Amino acid sequence: MKIQLALDRLSIEEAISIAAEVEESIDWIEVGTSLIKEFGMRSVKELKEAFPHKTIVADIKTMDNANYEAELCFEAGADVMTVMGAASASTIEACISKAKEYGKEVMIDLLNVAQDQKQHLAVWEEAILCEHVSKDDQELSGKKNDFNSSVFLGKRLAVAGGITEQSMQNLSGLKPEVVIIGSAITKSENKKEAALRLKTLCQIQEVSQ
Amino acid sequence: MKIQLALDRLSIEEAISIAAEVEESIDWIEVGTSLIKEFGMRSVKELKEAFPHKTIVADIKTMDNANYEAELCFEAGADVMTVMGAASASTIEACISKAKEYGKEVMIDLLNVAQDQKQHLAVWEEAILCEHVSKDDQELSGKKNDFNSSVFLGKRLAVAGGITEQSMQNLSGLKPEVVIIGSAITKSENKKEAALRLKTLCQIQEVSQ
Repeated sequence: MKIQLALDRLSIEEAISIAAEVEESIDWIEVGTSLIKEFGMRSVKELKEAFPHKTIVADIKTMDNANYEAELCFEAGADVMTVMGAASASTIEACISKAKEYGKEVMIDLLNVAQDQKQHLAVWEEAILCEHVSKDDQELSGKKNDFNSSVFLGKRLAVAGGITEQSMQNLSGLKPEVVIIGSAITKSENKKEAALRLKTLCQIQEVSQ
Repeated sequence: MKIQLALDRLSIEEAISIAAEVEESIDWIEVGTSLIKEFGMRSVKELKEAFPHKTIVADIKTMDNANYEAELCFEAGADVMTVMGAASASTIEACISKAKEYGKEVMIDLLNVAQDQKQHLAVWEEAILCEHVSKDDQELSGKKNDFNSSVFLGKRLAVAGGITEQSMQNLSGLKPEVVIIGSAITKSENKKEAALRLKTLCQIQEVSQ
């Protein structure tokens, strides 16, 4: 299980500083949607320049205009881009095709995709499917994540949405390839220690699988 | 019927130059998703500074993190922000609430929302509902717009997706508040004349209603 550090609601400088602090305990660095929308592709470019050996995920949440947005991401240095599961099949297909052209990857964000719609997304076997409880559903409606009902068991899976040291321990049945963690690291008083504890929890789960 | 000029796949300078050329024939100026994702909020800020008396639409396509993204848009000078109809109700509600706080407006983008899901969105009476055929469905799958099946007749309605001088003439039954036009102006050889012809078609439809 890889840890993807989600960097959101930060300046680019703050994002680089936090990533540098926890670099040893995390695997992938996500340039959050809020950084992309606030600062543009400069955010992806500067994070890649600061961490050239890390996998950089551009959480661009593409809904349309796939070829253009995919090129923006990969030209800026992203190794993975996100596309919404709620987008049309043409959009998802174009992202995957463009990623292949660049030798890069696509993560399909399942935010607010109904269970019956999710079935149609299982065809994209090369993509990473990301089960995702939205920030707004967590913060404004008190919704908790429940990833164990995922229809994508056995696929390339990522999980995102309010994951903490406690909820990490419920993921062993899922065997996700990527665990996306934001505020449990970025809002921790001691970020380095929090990341190290989460890394250790990942390793324990891998051994027990 | 207002004309919203959609500015996409351009530099900020090109966007300002095109908007200046057709300013007299158009009503609202949309800072396209591609401009926001490529250049960040600077794109919204610079368009508002260039056209302080025009309504500026930030096509930010919010899927989550509504309060943060709404503040980004309205603080940068946007008069209208977009949120996806595919987002969760918490997200849409937060955008509408934040817009009220700023005295601004929300457009709900119905891109890839199924007919039965659309019914749930009719509750947002203060928002503009935007029937939208995606660029990718048009360009990669050859899909045409068919707005006349809209379940939102009589609501505040916008239409978007490959609208031309020809297809403008099929909109009279819908009576949209806003017609969103991109390439029929931006890719025209004589943009000023194209915009003027589209404005005239709008006026003819208004008289005939």
